[in-house]
Amino acid sequence: MAGNSIGKAFVFTSFGESHGKLVGVVVDGCPAGLPFSGVDVQADLDRRIPLQKPGLVSGRVEKDIAQIQSGVFNGFTTGAPICLTLENKETQSTDYDSIRDLPRPAHADYTAFVKYGGFNDPRGGGRFSGRITVATIMAGALAKKLLSQFDVDVLAYTRSIGKIKSEKQLGLGEIRKNRYESAVRCPDLACSEKMEDAILAAKKAGESLGGVIECVALNVPAGAGEPLFDTLDGDLAKALFTVPAVKGVEFGSGFELTEMLGSEANDAFQMQNGKVATATNLAGGILGGISSGMPIVIRVAVKPTPSIAKEQQTVHLAKMENAKIKVGGRHDPCVVPKAVPAVEAAAAFTLADHMIRAGFIPKILKRQE
Amino acid sequence: MAGNSIGKAFVFTSFGESHGKLVGVVVDGCPAGLPFSGVDVQADLDRRIPLQKPGLVSGRVEKDIAQIQSGVFNGFTTGAPICLTLENKETQSTDYDSIRDLPRPAHADYTAFVKYGGFNDPRGGGRFSGRITVATIMAGALAKKLLSQFDVDVLAYTRSIGKIKSEKQLGLGEIRKNRYESAVRCPDLACSEKMEDAILAAKKAGESLGGVIECVALNVPAGAGEPLFDTLDGDLAKALFTVPAVKGVEFGSGFELTEMLGSEANDAFQMQNGKVATATNLAGGILGGISSGMPIVIRVAVKPTPSIAKEQQTVHLAKMENAKIKVGGRHDPCVVPKAVPAVEAAAAFTLADHMIRAGFIPKILKRQE
Amino acid sequence: MAGNSIGKAFVFTSFGESHGKLVGVVVDGCPAGLPFSGVDVQADLDRRIPLQKPGLVSGRVEKDIAQIQSGVFNGFTTGAPICLTLENKETQSTDYDSIRDLPRPAHADYTAFVKYGGFNDPRGGGRFSGRITVATIMAGALAKKLLSQFDVDVLAYTRSIGKIKSEKQLGLGEIRKNRYESAVRCPDLACSEKMEDAILAAKKAGESLGGVIECVALNVPAGAGEPLFDTLDGDLAKALFTVPAVKGVEFGSGFELTEMLGSEANDAFQMQNGKVATATNLAGGILGGISSGMPIVIRVAVKPTPSIAKEQQTVHLAKMENAKIKVGGRHDPCVVPKAVPAVEAAAAFTLADHMIRAGFIPKILKRQE
Amino acid sequence: MAGNSIGKAFVFTSFGESHGKLVGVVVDGCPAGLPFSGVDVQADLDRRIPLQKPGLVSGRVEKDIAQIQSGVFNGFTTGAPICLTLENKETQSTDYDSIRDLPRPAHADYTAFVKYGGFNDPRGGGRFSGRITVATIMAGALAKKLLSQFDVDVLAYTRSIGKIKSEKQLGLGEIRKNRYESAVRCPDLACSEKMEDAILAAKKAGESLGGVIECVALNVPAGAGEPLFDTLDGDLAKALFTVPAVKGVEFGSGFELTEMLGSEANDAFQMQNGKVATATNLAGGILGGISSGMPIVIRVAVKPTPSIAKEQQTVHLAKMENAKIKVGGRHDPCVVPKAVPAVEAAAAFTLADHMIRAGFIPKILKRQE
Repeated sequence: MAGNSIGKAFVFTSFGESHGKLVGVVVDGCPAGLPFSGVDVQADLDRRIPLQKPGLVSGRVEKDIAQIQSGVFNGFTTGAPICLTLENKETQSTDYDSIRDLPRPAHADYTAFVKYGGFNDPRGGGRFSGRITVATIMAGALAKKLLSQFDVDVLAYTRSIGKIKSEKQLGLGEIRKNRYESAVRCPDLACSEKMEDAILAAKKAGESLGGVIECVALNVPAGAGEPLFDTLDGDLAKALFTVPAVKGVEFGSGFELTEMLGSEANDAFQMQNGKVATATNLAGGILGGISSGMPIVIRVAVKPTPSIAKEQQTVHLAKMENAKIKVGGRHDPCVVPKAVPAVEAAAAFTLADHMIRAGFIPKILKRQE
Repeated sequence: MAGNSIGKAFVFTSFGESHGKLVGVVVDGCPAGLPFSGVDVQADLDRRIPLQKPGLVSGRVEKDIAQIQSGVFNGFTTGAPICLTLENKETQSTDYDSIRDLPRPAHADYTAFVKYGGFNDPRGGGRFSGRITVATIMAGALAKKLLSQFDVDVLAYTRSIGKIKSEKQLGLGEIRKNRYESAVRCPDLACSEKMEDAILAAKKAGESLGGVIECVALNVPAGAGEPLFDTLDGDLAKALFTVPAVKGVEFGSGFELTEMLGSEANDAFQMQNGKVATATNLAGGILGGISSGMPIVIRVAVKPTPSIAKEQQTVHLAKMENAKIKVGGRHDPCVVPKAVPAVEAAAAFTLADHMIRAGFIPKILKRQE
Repeated sequence: MAGNSIGKAFVFTSFGESHGKLVGVVVDGCPAGLPFSGVDVQADLDRRIPLQKPGLVSGRVEKDIAQIQSGVFNGFTTGAPICLTLENKETQSTDYDSIRDLPRPAHADYTAFVKYGGFNDPRGGGRFSGRITVATIMAGALAKKLLSQFDVDVLAYTRSIGKIKSEKQLGLGEIRKNRYESAVRCPDLACSEKMEDAILAAKKAGESLGGVIECVALNVPAGAGEPLFDTLDGDLAKALFTVPAVKGVEFGSGFELTEMLGSEANDAFQMQNGKVATATNLAGGILGGISSGMPIVIRVAVKPTPSIAKEQQTVHLAKMENAKIKVGGRHDPCVVPKAVPAVEAAAAFTLADHMIRAGFIPKILKRQE
Repeated sequence: MAGNSIGKAFVFTSFGESHGKLVGVVVDGCPAGLPFSGVDVQADLDRRIPLQKPGLVSGRVEKDIAQIQSGVFNGFTTGAPICLTLENKETQSTDYDSIRDLPRPAHADYTAFVKYGGFNDPRGGGRFSGRITVATIMAGALAKKLLSQFDVDVLAYTRSIGKIKSEKQLGLGEIRKNRYESAVRCPDLACSEKMEDAILAAKKAGESLGGVIECVALNVPAGAGEPLFDTLDGDLAKALFTVPAVKGVEFGSGFELTEMLGSEANDAFQMQNGKVATATNLAGGILGGISSGMPIVIRVAVKPTPSIAKEQQTVHLAKMENAKIKVGGRHDPCVVPKAVPAVEAAAAFTLADHMIRAGFIPKILKRQE
């Protein structure tokens, strides 16, 4: 059954495979009159590839150029569905010939094989590759353009890589300024260096690392989110589990809240500049599934890259017997840096959908009234 | 905009308020021919109220009797939508008179007020009360009846209350046997005692506690879950954030995976009794958004009950100035025990929806072919 | 699979059976702050039963009293799902004992039997009875209350019964005034008499009649309707095919347009009181799936009541052989009069959904801004 | 809000504009393992352009070559979303420069202008052009491939052009054989000649014609269609109103049924070759929104082409005053022949969606079990 669309008012449909012709996205429900061009998409796509340090990312370094195929005329969205595509140029599919029979541990090779009766495209992980996040990033770029109409800003960055954690609370200016200077997208630059070293060490050992990505959305007004089921936190979580390797999502202080007393966990309401705010923000900006007006704070657990150089135990699906596998191809020793813009994009298109659903009106439409 | 339905093939619509006439649910898409009666629902509803120890739950102890209003004829589902309702009998709405003006910290009072322009039903938290989980539990009871057609079993239980953690790995038989003997639904009975004491101590101090609930789904065959967006983990997470007070969801080893090396985190495939399985299950039974055939393991973070006896800081919404609040009414010092069946139900209806979506055929329909 | 909900922003879920406990509806997505009470529903329900002439309608004359079960507090909608129910009091189910084996021609008995494997509730047609339209009418009453916020008015009335056609073009005032004075809901009162006679003659002959219902929606502003697929005409048609016995839907001059020349069929644009309008309205107020600001004009074909006193040919499903059937029970010789408020309701909830989807803002919400 | 997707299990999303880069479609939910290639699409696309007689269609004669962009690997569907595109090569956009200010009567120019605040792409009608039906045809080609797995066959053909009606009841073999030999897709070839003459005469007079298209679906088993709202007839009607110029849809004897007596209109059940069938099929194969096993018969009213050579009355939107318009560009004097494959496609993808929703299993998946 269908499952490649997400959103109700601002709907994002994803298509394409890692080693097929292209990866693409159709966004339906974007209001007409929004200025939008390929430049908006390109900036986010470029951020996906951290080139600063050799060895940190896989050898596959495509310069991805987004194409706007429909829905934009004379530099403005038309109200029609917007199709964005990206050609796949550099594909070395011979690397993956053995995937069909020997599922890589912790990858989707086996589950996809079962689900699709062996008809799924196995090249480069096909539809389950991290490459598919470029569709998410393209949709997210459009979503962020729409969110800018509400002054909403979404920022993702790295909080930890393996056991290296950045505990520092940086200001938003610093985060915005530093995060793309860091090869691992950690705005705490001293910590970033340690993270890079840890990744290189893991790579050398034929290993991989995971980490935690934090994402903050600023200026989301109170009132977005549709209880009981289409809650803002529920829909954000659902969108974030789309990013490959994500295994957990928490809001505000998340799992830490479970060890606190009520009086420690409750954010007291208080007046700030004539507006209702909370003294702390342990709830992460969401109460009862609805935004509270405080920053939305999300943390996402990313598991270590499943592809490692070390030999691993698997099964041979045709022979139905135990087997060994050494995963070839080009792989990132840590996908966290590449996942940062994908997390940001997934949060952005969920927020864009909810802003429209809650009836907030883009500035550009207000002007027209 | 609408947001009170969830699911695509097996769709659950929730309605009702804490202190209104009733709480109810319509389930649409349940196959015809499934044996179903009020008894199936009642067992789960009864489990919601742990009566063993005085003080552990709030004074409000309704004996909830579920009514089947439609969709069942002669003891079998008919294929028509199934409406289940529960009357609200014991409602002391005067306790909540001040809610409209003085939003309780960490509750949805303020966000609901903003979203609905003050028209939301404030009595007992209205639509945002934990009482609404009885609708979830009724839908879950039906879902579990459907899941039994696939031999799928869903079990939730308490893993921690505040700082008291049950680390013991119990067998499933033990979990099934013990969990409802524990007043806090923790099958590790020694630990359960400590948890109960902790709750009573918190209550005495005018405080509240949170905790972690674990939920395991057994015998889910490989192949359920629809990538890219309607993943099994994404849809489970979305459904779980519906349970009030949930602030985080993780699968398998979740956030712990972020500190492991790839070789530690990867579950090796191996043949077991002629079938493909994994040696470990750190992925929690889901790879690429699709079930792997291994047990699905979910952990859910529940924050401390927001309602505490201690005086708290808030704002007066009519006067727009700072104010103090002492939350009256009847409240659970820890909602974790009551949330256990709600978590189980939310997991169950998501799994039921995905079993149908993936094309698995209930035994009863197979017999008919 | 699920199919008992309709709408995207204003979503109506139907449940209940003809001879079960009740018939009900959940409406999700209704804005908060709309004044609403049982009185609003009751007027439309009462109009369903034309009592003026004995013999025109079936013996089953329930006084249906609608109950608001949720979503309304202190006389205003709360933004929560609104559940409305109607008890079934007068049910003589023994009339229908033979339905299971002997499907009535032109009824859904056979198709429902196949679809639900014989588990469907057969009493009184179960889920396929005309009685289910009371759910539609309840949802429509709420929708009309919402449409009144946009000054949109929806009026359905009878255009023909059998071969008796009302060709007169009446003014809207006359339609509004006369239609419920006519036992067959035809505002052309001279014609109404002839229609009543035709129905009584058909009844006497053991026969039944069909007819055409026209529905007009006034003051729908230009701009409602979502191409390419969620067009206003497509969604109206889909909703109207829900009314039992409907076999055709056309807009404006509909099938007659197929015999016209382009110059005859095209409605010329012209300025009227400073606004864009069309000189004629053969398009029925919809161009490209979007409302044009002209009245929306729909015509609906209703087949003759399938239940007739005459003996008919059918099959015995258990024996799989030809058989005869004489349909017992209470039946209307013509369902057109009862279908008039159902058609009006189906048009109303579709329009309400599309007004919200297109971003039109209810007066009550404008006042709040 | 979004509206460019249709279907629930087999979901078709449309994108692209008449004079933009391309027209495309994403189909999500197609089962894996279906043989599919561009050839399947091309045959239907080629049928859209009847070249036999000069003057019957507009000067725009693109050879449309469909591209499969995703979802197919080694000649089989993979279970991933299938993107099909068609480049727009021949676009003479200067013909349409005046559309923005002078809306063409009976076109969507005015309603689109209002809905999208003037930001819609006006070139060649943009998103509202008949050209967009090529997306429908591509999706329909895939749907027909899937339907062939159930032996379901869908056939559309012309029943009338203007006042020339083909009343002959032809056998299916004859329909299949003749319809694409007729330049107007009327399998009654004698009648076809008269239709062609009528079109040429209308063209000469600066006029246009409409007509009626009939569509028959064979071998649809009993049991497809989801009441109450996602009925087979309701969903077919909704899909058909997507085809530009459609103003009415009826099933079986449709509006004619309104003038019959019950005994004339009811299709008697009878045993045929050991199976339940009906003696006649005035219901058009659908009872209670569910297929009956008899052929599904649909008739669709197509209005005359709005674009005519004659001068027409309109308004100038910038000046808000009355104006005259002579519609330039290339136009078909009758769109019925081009609409035939679009109607067939719209019926096909609706049926494909409902076959999956009803749980019918494609042959190819049965083989795998």
